[in-house]
Amino acid sequence: MIRVAVVGATGYAGAELVRILAGHPKVKLEMLTSRQHSGKRFSDIYPSMAGVVDMFCREFEPEMLAASLDLVFLALPHKLPMEIVPSLIKRGLRIVDLSADFRFSDVELYQSHYQRHTCPELLEKSVYGLSEVYARKIKSADIVGNPGCYPTSALLPLIPLIKGGFIETNGIVVDSKSGVSGAGRVPSLTTHHCEVNESFKAYKVTDHRHNPEMDEILSKEAEKRVHVTFVPHLVPMTRGMETTIYASLGKHANQEEIREYIRHFYRGHPFVRLRPAGSSADTLHVKGTNFCDMGVHVDSMANMVVMTSAIDNLVKGAAGQAVQNMNIMFGLDETLGLMAVPFPL
Amino acid sequence: MIRVAVVGATGYAGAELVRILAGHPKVKLEMLTSRQHSGKRFSDIYPSMAGVVDMFCREFEPEMLAASLDLVFLALPHKLPMEIVPSLIKRGLRIVDLSADFRFSDVELYQSHYQRHTCPELLEKSVYGLSEVYARKIKSADIVGNPGCYPTSALLPLIPLIKGGFIETNGIVVDSKSGVSGAGRVPSLTTHHCEVNESFKAYKVTDHRHNPEMDEILSKEAEKRVHVTFVPHLVPMTRGMETTIYASLGKHANQEEIREYIRHFYRGHPFVRLRPAGSSADTLHVKGTNFCDMGVHVDSMANMVVMTSAIDNLVKGAAGQAVQNMNIMFGLDETLGLMAVPFPL
Amino acid sequence: MIRVAVVGATGYAGAELVRILAGHPKVKLEMLTSRQHSGKRFSDIYPSMAGVVDMFCREFEPEMLAASLDLVFLALPHKLPMEIVPSLIKRGLRIVDLSADFRFSDVELYQSHYQRHTCPELLEKSVYGLSEVYARKIKSADIVGNPGCYPTSALLPLIPLIKGGFIETNGIVVDSKSGVSGAGRVPSLTTHHCEVNESFKAYKVTDHRHNPEMDEILSKEAEKRVHVTFVPHLVPMTRGMETTIYASLGKHANQEEIREYIRHFYRGHPFVRLRPAGSSADTLHVKGTNFCDMGVHVDSMANMVVMTSAIDNLVKGAAGQAVQNMNIMFGLDETLGLMAVPFPL
Amino acid sequence: MIRVAVVGATGYAGAELVRILAGHPKVKLEMLTSRQHSGKRFSDIYPSMAGVVDMFCREFEPEMLAASLDLVFLALPHKLPMEIVPSLIKRGLRIVDLSADFRFSDVELYQSHYQRHTCPELLEKSVYGLSEVYARKIKSADIVGNPGCYPTSALLPLIPLIKGGFIETNGIVVDSKSGVSGAGRVPSLTTHHCEVNESFKAYKVTDHRHNPEMDEILSKEAEKRVHVTFVPHLVPMTRGMETTIYASLGKHANQEEIREYIRHFYRGHPFVRLRPAGSSADTLHVKGTNFCDMGVHVDSMANMVVMTSAIDNLVKGAAGQAVQNMNIMFGLDETLGLMAVPFPL
Repeated sequence: MIRVAVVGATGYAGAELVRILAGHPKVKLEMLTSRQHSGKRFSDIYPSMAGVVDMFCREFEPEMLAASLDLVFLALPHKLPMEIVPSLIKRGLRIVDLSADFRFSDVELYQSHYQRHTCPELLEKSVYGLSEVYARKIKSADIVGNPGCYPTSALLPLIPLIKGGFIETNGIVVDSKSGVSGAGRVPSLTTHHCEVNESFKAYKVTDHRHNPEMDEILSKEAEKRVHVTFVPHLVPMTRGMETTIYASLGKHANQEEIREYIRHFYRGHPFVRLRPAGSSADTLHVKGTNFCDMGVHVDSMANMVVMTSAIDNLVKGAAGQAVQNMNIMFGLDETLGLMAVPFPL
Repeated sequence: MIRVAVVGATGYAGAELVRILAGHPKVKLEMLTSRQHSGKRFSDIYPSMAGVVDMFCREFEPEMLAASLDLVFLALPHKLPMEIVPSLIKRGLRIVDLSADFRFSDVELYQSHYQRHTCPELLEKSVYGLSEVYARKIKSADIVGNPGCYPTSALLPLIPLIKGGFIETNGIVVDSKSGVSGAGRVPSLTTHHCEVNESFKAYKVTDHRHNPEMDEILSKEAEKRVHVTFVPHLVPMTRGMETTIYASLGKHANQEEIREYIRHFYRGHPFVRLRPAGSSADTLHVKGTNFCDMGVHVDSMANMVVMTSAIDNLVKGAAGQAVQNMNIMFGLDETLGLMAVPFPL
Repeated sequence: MIRVAVVGATGYAGAELVRILAGHPKVKLEMLTSRQHSGKRFSDIYPSMAGVVDMFCREFEPEMLAASLDLVFLALPHKLPMEIVPSLIKRGLRIVDLSADFRFSDVELYQSHYQRHTCPELLEKSVYGLSEVYARKIKSADIVGNPGCYPTSALLPLIPLIKGGFIETNGIVVDSKSGVSGAGRVPSLTTHHCEVNESFKAYKVTDHRHNPEMDEILSKEAEKRVHVTFVPHLVPMTRGMETTIYASLGKHANQEEIREYIRHFYRGHPFVRLRPAGSSADTLHVKGTNFCDMGVHVDSMANMVVMTSAIDNLVKGAAGQAVQNMNIMFGLDETLGLMAVPFPL
Repeated sequence: MIRVAVVGATGYAGAELVRILAGHPKVKLEMLTSRQHSGKRFSDIYPSMAGVVDMFCREFEPEMLAASLDLVFLALPHKLPMEIVPSLIKRGLRIVDLSADFRFSDVELYQSHYQRHTCPELLEKSVYGLSEVYARKIKSADIVGNPGCYPTSALLPLIPLIKGGFIETNGIVVDSKSGVSGAGRVPSLTTHHCEVNESFKAYKVTDHRHNPEMDEILSKEAEKRVHVTFVPHLVPMTRGMETTIYASLGKHANQEEIREYIRHFYRGHPFVRLRPAGSSADTLHVKGTNFCDMGVHVDSMANMVVMTSAIDNLVKGAAGQAVQNMNIMFGLDETLGLMAVPFPL
């Protein structure tokens, strides 16, 4: 059994980690921490869990984590993880961090969009946890920087398009739409029901911090500087993220050739599902699952490839991919604990 | 392994049965039937299931079911089940029927609210499948009439109130609210998104066919004629049912005494969860689960007991309770295949 | 023209007042105040109003209101109004207060559910603003205590039932369901989209402060002590309130007799609409309007009257009724400025 | 008074026309027709209108329209309008048609995406009713082809970008998101609440019939062949449409220069509102109104202009713009009957 702790267990991503880990056949959930709710039962905060996960939440103290753990999931706001990761690493723990603190290779890039990085030497050793693409590195990593939800939904379709030479790397457009749970559990006017309901809007247009994250990975894969134009939008729903990608065809290719390439690219990776020809991805089909569904279209009048992808932002976009990375790190089947039969609706 | 078929697999209750059965450790899902979608894969109808349940749906023919099955779930509109159950019984199959056809003891009562019953002799042998209350009879039944969603949400709180003598049996009010999935998958103006969204309304006021179903069971438990005043309402959401019950106190008792009695009444039945004192039941806490949450309140100025209950209408209100009944019929733990960790939201 | 100010203009009820008053043909909107947003344009807070209501919000100072106003609407949290009303009254202003501070006749009752009342002598002079029922007193009132949303939805159907002698006054059940806007604009976990969506639940069961408000009015109308059992519920939608009322028949009467009485009772009051026989009230039909729709049903097996009512909690339940009261106070047609053609959906 | 009829009054666009026209100070609503609901009151179909619009719906017969009408609104499915328009024109009536039948200049283009056009000679005389841009032609037109909702939301931002030379005309991306009311009132699985709720998806990717409509107008304005890559998406909400547009900068320009040009372009057209610098358009801000809100952004790293627009698909995207066109045709202020104060939420 892998002995794990979830630090920041009562935020939405943390709670989703608890859900998955509590049902994982090879995991022993040893500890939950929560600054705000320490001393309370997890099921007091999430009453759906009553009788199922009634563990108490504690205040985080690095010492506690030393003893008998194999891996720690960090589900904290940016900046906090890099303050505690060094001491965890010293104690020999492996880490999957859901914040942005360990996602970047280029410390300057991180610092220009977040803040000063306090352990750049660890950043160098961390691995970007896009499971299907970087499994080999993840396997041996001590620190996995779990990808952002938007980058996950954009990179999984874009990387094969780039590796296959199907698209021009300039002028790529990434138009993403997210359910409200992506904004977390702290109440604000943005997430206030009456302001969300019947509202659809873009936000942080061309100014979202997931943009440099995508750019860095795409540049690495394309072996040249890539910058995508990225606009996130807020959808009046709880879970789910859809991304529509537009890119100029880089060579003559039809829909079926691209589909075939992608199918081959993700062979052996069951969480990527290609929708039937002509169909697009729907958040409802991936709700509560670790799947990333994709659709491929070609606008031949415009010489443009259009791809759609759908994930559950809390699962493949956060907690699910984190557990998938844990599986990979510990040599398990990557789907273990993540293959509950999906809900029909 | 229990070999089962789902007849009517592509309606919402049928699809939910498929979801649960496909993940059940002691079940082999042998056959799915669908009149409308025969010849298609189940995952063509419910793309969330792609790669998970790709079985083909067939047209129903009683002969097919003969061979190598142990139990058949019927998820069909009322009236169809009683037409096919006799031939299934002859073939030695056990049956859980999700329609109203085998719920009533009193054939007259059935006939006055539905239609002529074509196999009253089988109705006599069938057992009402309210799992927590009738487990002993269910165990040996060949035909289980699975309860309606509204009756499930009302009977689980009401039966202990009656058995404990806490309430007067006249003047009971059952005010229920259901998500839209209860209306099934066939499109209509009632379930049209624009007519549902931002709409809350009562329907079939004091005229719903689940009313006599509740009345019959309550009369049996009270050992006298009981009629509740029942009003169902439609909530702009997909899953979930909340019921608020009002009844005059039948003897002096406070909230804690009633809670204690109920806790004892459902001891050993983990799907009934009592909310902490002062809290009421919330559909969000039971979404996707087989739980029935309950809250108890006393309005001492009015000498009135108020109870709230919440279930997922498609799970404890339909497919989940059906599988729970199968577990009981086959001597398994009643929770088997039904205890996935709930979603935090 | 009636010169008015809205104090607390940026909360939801205040903003709805601004919407109605800005389109009222006999009103001059002189001043908006907002503690939180003083110095900003109203349309900065509510961008839907850009180009329509671009007035600046100011900090409230009693002096400003002296000069050239006829009436002040107070849309503030309980307790604040009673602190400022005395000085406004001294300046000769008339007041419609949307809080609970001037709703009660019995100062003790107010104090036992809210806090010490600081101007009980003004409370005595204030009039309860249930427009259809108390128009005559409202006409000459200087202070109108605008009814709560729940009481409005319950009293309009209940008062004719009581006046007509149709029901027993003990054992009345009021089961109400409200959209989330009733909780106001201040973000909290209760109104957080992800906690509201797909959630339906009761809250403050038999413990809501609108309960004594209803009880006091009903006792007055019944000329004896009445206490209703009241349970409010939260519906995942923005606007709208539905109330289902259960009461024992007090005399032999059928649905049509009760309907006829109610129709007559509200003759000349166009905001009360009786639904066709057999139909119930739907929040979608009153969204954005000042209507109160009602349906009447009789459960003859239980000797029970069931009524349903629907209002828009922000309009008839707050700002609309407040303007209706202003119309009455100034001798205008009560519908003036409130009869925009309703939205079909 | 302008005497008008609405043909097809009980669909969503027709009903919205009725709402606006019933409140229009210069309109006399003479006749409503509905094939499906002839003989019923309009308020039987839309109970929100009870007591407000209780007119009876009739079966359409061209003769009836002859007598005493000035203008006919056609809110019918494509193909029906061109069958009846010739006879209406002969009777001297002016027409605003909400279908696609009279939107195209190029009959071949129409025919390749719809069906054979049966009165191409009338198509030649019809005017495309994008009010802000083609007011001069609309003024004297007998037949106005009212724009599609998607084209309205895309053309209003795109035309000034093109006229100002700000963008390259190849590679334009139009990513649109629509509420469900755009799909009309006829129930289907696509609009079934449980399939819409918590679902976000693209549909008819690069294959929607509004694409050639946009292309034709943009080509005319650009004076060269333009084809945009257009992807519509379905949002789980009732009303509202957001469009995000991506285009390569055609000359050096910053956000403020583009904003200034657009502001000037739409001077005197109050229904186009430019959001403050840095802000994007939100459907909630235009719900129930005839406004089109717009935001401008420049991604300078990609040399890309990004614009967002928001309309209410049933108002500016259909019935509102139709009435605006009527106002223009009859020499009235274009805002008449369309300037109700917007709802704050």
